[in-house]
Amino acid sequence: MVSINENYLKLKAGYLFPEITKRVNTFLVANSNTELIKLGIGDVTEPLPEACIKAMKNAVEDMGDHSKFKGYGPEQGYQWLREKIAYYDFQLRGCDIDASEIFISDGSKCDTGNILDIFGKNNKIAITDPVYPVYVDTNVMAGNTGPINVENNRYDDLIYLPIKAENNFVANIPDVKVDLIYLCFPNNPTGAVANKEYLKSWVDYAQANNSIILFDAAYEAFITEETIPHSIYEIEGAKNCAIEFRSFSKNAGFTGTRCAFTVVPKTLIANTANGSTVELWKMWNRRQSTKFNGVSYIIQRGAEAVYSEEGKIQVNNLVKFYLENARIIRKQLNTTKLDKVYGGINSPYIWLKTPENISSWEFFDELLRTVNIVGTPGSGFGSSGEGYFRISAFNSRENVEEAMKRIKKHYKV
Amino acid sequence: MVSINENYLKLKAGYLFPEITKRVNTFLVANSNTELIKLGIGDVTEPLPEACIKAMKNAVEDMGDHSKFKGYGPEQGYQWLREKIAYYDFQLRGCDIDASEIFISDGSKCDTGNILDIFGKNNKIAITDPVYPVYVDTNVMAGNTGPINVENNRYDDLIYLPIKAENNFVANIPDVKVDLIYLCFPNNPTGAVANKEYLKSWVDYAQANNSIILFDAAYEAFITEETIPHSIYEIEGAKNCAIEFRSFSKNAGFTGTRCAFTVVPKTLIANTANGSTVELWKMWNRRQSTKFNGVSYIIQRGAEAVYSEEGKIQVNNLVKFYLENARIIRKQLNTTKLDKVYGGINSPYIWLKTPENISSWEFFDELLRTVNIVGTPGSGFGSSGEGYFRISAFNSRENVEEAMKRIKKHYKV
Repeated sequence: MVSINENYLKLKAGYLFPEITKRVNTFLVANSNTELIKLGIGDVTEPLPEACIKAMKNAVEDMGDHSKFKGYGPEQGYQWLREKIAYYDFQLRGCDIDASEIFISDGSKCDTGNILDIFGKNNKIAITDPVYPVYVDTNVMAGNTGPINVENNRYDDLIYLPIKAENNFVANIPDVKVDLIYLCFPNNPTGAVANKEYLKSWVDYAQANNSIILFDAAYEAFITEETIPHSIYEIEGAKNCAIEFRSFSKNAGFTGTRCAFTVVPKTLIANTANGSTVELWKMWNRRQSTKFNGVSYIIQRGAEAVYSEEGKIQVNNLVKFYLENARIIRKQLNTTKLDKVYGGINSPYIWLKTPENISSWEFFDELLRTVNIVGTPGSGFGSSGEGYFRISAFNSRENVEEAMKRIKKHYKV
Repeated sequence: MVSINENYLKLKAGYLFPEITKRVNTFLVANSNTELIKLGIGDVTEPLPEACIKAMKNAVEDMGDHSKFKGYGPEQGYQWLREKIAYYDFQLRGCDIDASEIFISDGSKCDTGNILDIFGKNNKIAITDPVYPVYVDTNVMAGNTGPINVENNRYDDLIYLPIKAENNFVANIPDVKVDLIYLCFPNNPTGAVANKEYLKSWVDYAQANNSIILFDAAYEAFITEETIPHSIYEIEGAKNCAIEFRSFSKNAGFTGTRCAFTVVPKTLIANTANGSTVELWKMWNRRQSTKFNGVSYIIQRGAEAVYSEEGKIQVNNLVKFYLENARIIRKQLNTTKLDKVYGGINSPYIWLKTPENISSWEFFDELLRTVNIVGTPGSGFGSSGEGYFRISAFNSRENVEEAMKRIKKHYKV
């Protein structure tokens, strides 16, 4: 009789976004004429940069042309893309990252989940709370979390690092030893950023404890403050203790186009049980060669265009557009009763304290019912997110302005 | 200190294709003016069908158009693609497969590896020998194989089912109980096919033993004989015991474009340790929702075009082209000393007995040196492949004819 991976049975049943969909649909059945504005899920709304469109059209044509046709590409991605990423995203910022350390993939969601394939089963794993649910769920599936404690909705074997207004939404360095640490900056969901000193304290901690930092920088393009690092590799020593995840989803609007990359420095070394050393680069390279077949040639050509002269300008304009949405949301909320507003400066996400300490889901229902706006309950990202609410700036200007008009009217001081 | 997945250390160091590349490069250094013909790796050479090109160009344009732009799609794939697959690939062949049971992915290599995520750790796993190396390596990585026995190059905990000329390259049903069985028809590497009676005996076995068949049908488009089933679901009972993997790589030439799919029927039930039941569909759906973000909209539109009227004709012509190559290879080899030829009728692969019982790698070196042709040593697919050699029909007509000319001259009777 076949046995199944029973760790799946430990997953929480009601995942955040399906629950949102359910409540929205129930509401719409009773209120079918409502014009809902969705500021919930972090999905882009604006078309791809023209440079990417042009490049992908050419690439499609290549695939129809015998002399330019591409079969299997390298599992790690094409060298021309890896080199541009290494140069523009890292070397230009003073990070000593080589093209061979870049692994092109079809998404950061996949990579942050798949990276667990190369790690062992007895690691102490730290996540922030609130956190991107995929980090937790993929660890549950991999059997790294133990059972869930129904009282506080936390898994027994995970180390939770609370992030809230009291610590400026940056987690304190733990006083226990952990082996794997997930950090996400600019943060999803809180929109918080980390400065160099703070990241240095994590790198020091990781080096002292032989831990690995899994650094999710999917939102780095939204950083507006000059002193904030875009990559963990801007911190000395990080090449010995950090893997970084990046994506074209949010900067170039590739959520439906699918391209991302992961940086695994060759200097990352781990020990085996018997004390010999292993390069994590070699392990990830073997993992990708065996379980992945590379990203479509067409899509990689689109990603490459992000680094062209026109591409850079167009991506910059896209990011500016969403940041202006975020600025409008922040500014307008500040004139209302919903004026405990965080994030939204270096991030497309605004993190809001619910009014009068009502719960995240109560506020979700209230916002849906009274102003017909859908956001994301903070408690869906972890128990320390309770009493908070995420509003996404990924929408048209018109919708953002209309949403703020409704909120200003309903929540006026 | 972080621990790593030490199962990776059990992987064989010299993977087949890197070893081929190494030998070819060494040869080319000493013989730089040689015109090599590569009939090794199973990669397509002909451009994509015009229908796919057209559809993807339109899809790229959609992504640049505000009103048609697509952000995150369903992790399982777009309904319009899933429905066409269910109808044309299954329902038209009498298989009761619903669109919701189709999961679109970026490759069968990924899927055949990732499927192990949903299974437990104590399954007895059977593979054929020779076999597509990814089945073995992903099981090694998942910790399912035990250590390797250096004497016979086999993993202690895998059940190997030899396939050779003596059993017409179809594995005998094992006399022990196994839980997971990998079957691949038309077979890579041997090119053999399975008839209904044979597949029925596996389905009966799996139903009797509560086992799951992992059925790789990536090459089904190459089936020319009418009585040979294209899908395991043509066999009664298979919906209770089989998962099927399909790909657009070899029929429509998508090896560099990337699209495939996996069929997980809702009727597949497994038991947990405490005796409750679990639907494998739900588990795979959760796996894909959590660790995957769907295939690019652009690529899915390309795959959809495979099912258009013009697409079907063009794909058919592509397949015919490679099958004609295979026919030429078979016919010409039969007039030479290399006349122990299998496969190539319902498959793009010709499986050759080496002359005078020399080893697969000896024959590889001989073919490289004497006629400057690269093939794939059978022993690279497993120890029962020793003494065999794979020749791929994926090449231009010109190269195939030139290769056969050289072989006819050198190996003339």
